[in-house]
Amino acid sequence: MMIKKTERLPKGSYLPWDEILDSLNFNVDGLIPAIAQQHDTNEVLMMAWMNQESIKESLKTNRVCYWSRSRQRLWRKGESSGQEQHLVAMHIDCDGDTLLLKVDQTGPACHTGRRSCFYNVVKNDKVLVDSDPLIDPTQLYK
Amino acid sequence: MMIKKTERLPKGSYLPWDEILDSLNFNVDGLIPAIAQQHDTNEVLMMAWMNQESIKESLKTNRVCYWSRSRQRLWRKGESSGQEQHLVAMHIDCDGDTLLLKVDQTGPACHTGRRSCFYNVVKNDKVLVDSDPLIDPTQLYK
Repeated sequence: MMIKKTERLPKGSYLPWDEILDSLNFNVDGLIPAIAQQHDTNEVLMMAWMNQESIKESLKTNRVCYWSRSRQRLWRKGESSGQEQHLVAMHIDCDGDTLLLKVDQTGPACHTGRRSCFYNVVKNDKVLVDSDPLIDPTQLYK
Repeated sequence: MMIKKTERLPKGSYLPWDEILDSLNFNVDGLIPAIAQQHDTNEVLMMAWMNQESIKESLKTNRVCYWSRSRQRLWRKGESSGQEQHLVAMHIDCDGDTLLLKVDQTGPACHTGRRSCFYNVVKNDKVLVDSDPLIDPTQLYK
């Protein structure tokens, strides 16, 4: 696998992106998980899925485009909510099976209106809600 | 789905963890993706997979335990490399299909000896290696 060649390479080395893209470890549905992280605060905002087409579009437009598994179509983040995700950098993990997107997220990333989707935290025998919406979700999807 | 009930709940609300755990959105293999993030710096270290047993063990021992898809067995992070991941908090996303683990990682999280697995970054038509190993991988797996 092409990405494996990076294991022993020193910082500053590089490989051709088109060959890496072709060798990414897409699952049986042609998808790869992508983590979105706010580029300056490092907050993890959400996780969604990309296919080869959405990866190419995201890099071309610098606006993050996912593959919606529920709608089975390209999903340009913010297309209905107005809360866009601008792509700052795309990272690939050591075995080519996960992407980390450094993004600049305007407002909430979560469909509930919260900044991050990871607002539930396990505390002993309970799950605690640890943040409130920035925007009422009924105002996000009118 | 149980986790959906949290959507409209204010900060500080809680639900029973055992019912949330049973309703998590495990895939057909019984697995859910888990992102590991260093709790104090917010650096994203890696992404791996958990099943219900590894989730329970991680919470019980406060050492992160994944499910290794390649080895098809529980994988106590650091069991062969010595680079353990201590669990600080477990977060669940809005639709119960991804976990975010706040961890305290001793040394490198990546099998290449690098701190993070996401050391490859797309730069135009190239993929650049953006960090060096902290420890020679031949010293990690003796």
